[in-house]
Amino acid sequence: MNFSQVAQACQESPMRKYHPYAVKAKEAGKKVYHLNIGQPDIATPPAFFDAVKGFHEEVVAYAASPGMPVLVDAICNYYKGIGIDYAPANVLITTGGSEALHIAMTCILDPGDELIVPQPYYPNYFTFARQTGAVVKPITTTPENGYHYAEEALLESVVTDKTRAILLSNPGNPCGTVLTKDEMRMIADFAKKHDLWIIADEVYREFVYGGEDLMSFGEFEDVADRVILIDSVSKRFSACGARIGCMISKNKELMAHALKFCQARLSVATLDQIASAALYGVDADYFEKVRAEYKLRRDTVYSKLQQIPGVVCSCPGGAFYIMAKLPVDDAEKFQLWLLENFEDNGDTVMFSPGKCFYATPGMGLSEIRIAYILKQKDLERAMDLLALGIEAYNKQNQ
Amino acid sequence: MNFSQVAQACQESPMRKYHPYAVKAKEAGKKVYHLNIGQPDIATPPAFFDAVKGFHEEVVAYAASPGMPVLVDAICNYYKGIGIDYAPANVLITTGGSEALHIAMTCILDPGDELIVPQPYYPNYFTFARQTGAVVKPITTTPENGYHYAEEALLESVVTDKTRAILLSNPGNPCGTVLTKDEMRMIADFAKKHDLWIIADEVYREFVYGGEDLMSFGEFEDVADRVILIDSVSKRFSACGARIGCMISKNKELMAHALKFCQARLSVATLDQIASAALYGVDADYFEKVRAEYKLRRDTVYSKLQQIPGVVCSCPGGAFYIMAKLPVDDAEKFQLWLLENFEDNGDTVMFSPGKCFYATPGMGLSEIRIAYILKQKDLERAMDLLALGIEAYNKQNQ
Repeated sequence: MNFSQVAQACQESPMRKYHPYAVKAKEAGKKVYHLNIGQPDIATPPAFFDAVKGFHEEVVAYAASPGMPVLVDAICNYYKGIGIDYAPANVLITTGGSEALHIAMTCILDPGDELIVPQPYYPNYFTFARQTGAVVKPITTTPENGYHYAEEALLESVVTDKTRAILLSNPGNPCGTVLTKDEMRMIADFAKKHDLWIIADEVYREFVYGGEDLMSFGEFEDVADRVILIDSVSKRFSACGARIGCMISKNKELMAHALKFCQARLSVATLDQIASAALYGVDADYFEKVRAEYKLRRDTVYSKLQQIPGVVCSCPGGAFYIMAKLPVDDAEKFQLWLLENFEDNGDTVMFSPGKCFYATPGMGLSEIRIAYILKQKDLERAMDLLALGIEAYNKQNQ
Repeated sequence: MNFSQVAQACQESPMRKYHPYAVKAKEAGKKVYHLNIGQPDIATPPAFFDAVKGFHEEVVAYAASPGMPVLVDAICNYYKGIGIDYAPANVLITTGGSEALHIAMTCILDPGDELIVPQPYYPNYFTFARQTGAVVKPITTTPENGYHYAEEALLESVVTDKTRAILLSNPGNPCGTVLTKDEMRMIADFAKKHDLWIIADEVYREFVYGGEDLMSFGEFEDVADRVILIDSVSKRFSACGARIGCMISKNKELMAHALKFCQARLSVATLDQIASAALYGVDADYFEKVRAEYKLRRDTVYSKLQQIPGVVCSCPGGAFYIMAKLPVDDAEKFQLWLLENFEDNGDTVMFSPGKCFYATPGMGLSEIRIAYILKQKDLERAMDLLALGIEAYNKQNQ
């Protein structure tokens, strides 16, 4: 049977492709510490469950295609709180930030169009772009310079007359990069100069550890017609399994096109929308507490990494990821070896091998992404396992 | 700003584009009887809500990308009950049948490929196909011959060397057509002869009113490698807002490709999967009761339509839709007029204008789709409003 070029060009998720090996390791009695998926262990606020239990309709009916007003209003209100004015018509509720990305790209990218993305990047960006037939044009960064990409000369070096958009996550997955206000302004000006869309994936907005104000590309009024925000409750409220995100833009024509794709898939899950709306009512100190917890974890992971000889990494400013270059030949081989051949008192550890965060073949081979989403004690143990694993792997590899 | 060709080629959903006019009509104090959307008023089985309330995890976490085992197992078990053997690896859980359709088409269709679809068809088929760059090749049917499409000569007349698949819903939306076993066999043989995929949208499987056994293209073992089933809990259990569907196939390569797109969007809503698994445990007589209720509604709608002078329609065998040709110049104009200018004791009615169920421009102008998803009394009133509306519309139109 025939398969599409798109299907053949796309790859398995690097965060999920080792799942079967982890299952086998667990069946063999090992405990696996997961640093591979951005699934926080922070409790989902009780408001979510209360709202679900408070649902007393007889029928779990389709919601309106653009999203339920109660959730749209909650999101507008949240943005008002960080000084940005969005009307309900600027917001479309989506099945996670993932669908928002997919719909945004479907609206603006044709086959052969180019999409600028700093690499390493969130690998699913590639899959969504590839589905439109567009090409990812990476801005290459290095572990040695802290994966820094926000330089005008770097951006200018990859733009062509086929470039339609720049896509970035800020704070960044997988590098934890947090843009400064000046860097954001420079990117906005770059987009204006070359008539580009800015797809700003801001699902990690709250996770900044340097005392920064919460920032958004939505602040720049002069590029409001070219900014598409991707947002989600997944990380913000530790509600990944709710699959509630949104696409936000003041460009009316864009929103009219996007609505057609929202209508084609009918609606987003009703109960999850109601429950997610309730999440936005959390106490004012909720984010502070969560931020303090993640900052502690970041400090732990960074300090542990610094203690491993040969590791190259910088201290990430936000999100809950860190990219690091390990002193191993091949991070994929190393990951498989950790699952199949390694244990320390019955324990092993998982991360995401770096290769798949790059569009450029051959890059990132020795790099990994760590998601610091475990409680302090587990995180320390996981990092010790990583150190022990590197030592043992290189020993048997000699 | 630039928009993609796909975005510009796709249309608003005909079932949803009149929503703003309905909102206005309601604001003006009118009661609107909705026959336009396949949103049943049948109560969602309590098992759904019980399962949701029984969720006691601390975190609403991502589910596995292929779907939660509890739901996959429930679906395999359901198919066993109708005599079809599917393993868990043959099933991918999706966000509604909609995502299953989208992923299936993404896996098999390239730009320029052709997809055979009997028209009138479910309009979102067009949007999903268009997103792959493929072209819908309609098999044209007519109200006068009961929208009959399952004839070998008709199928042969549209197949070319670019044809990759035939897509159909059975029982059919919007026509209510139920294929006979011989017709299904003929379509399977046609697919074999021309090396085509069969995308069988069987979300209305239970809704057959002629005492038929529940049928599926999954029964034909000799085409198992080319059959892709689309299924969903939406209609089966009146749980449209759960957004839980699945894509089923025994073609391993297809499922491996599809999994990549499932991984890219991470997972399907966790609570809805758990709750949907519970739905499959409904009492054995659940479907009989629901079927009896819909049969009554079908009979009501059909009999009411027959009483309106000039209407052309046939009695549908399944699903909960009927297509009918009305004695009006333009069903879209008529719908808008009903919402803006008509009322009878403060009431008016909505259906779906037929034009958008056709790929061929100019077809279906006087046709409508009625979803018989209201309780008996409301349904009778809605159909009386349709009759009164036609009369009044044609009078003022003279």
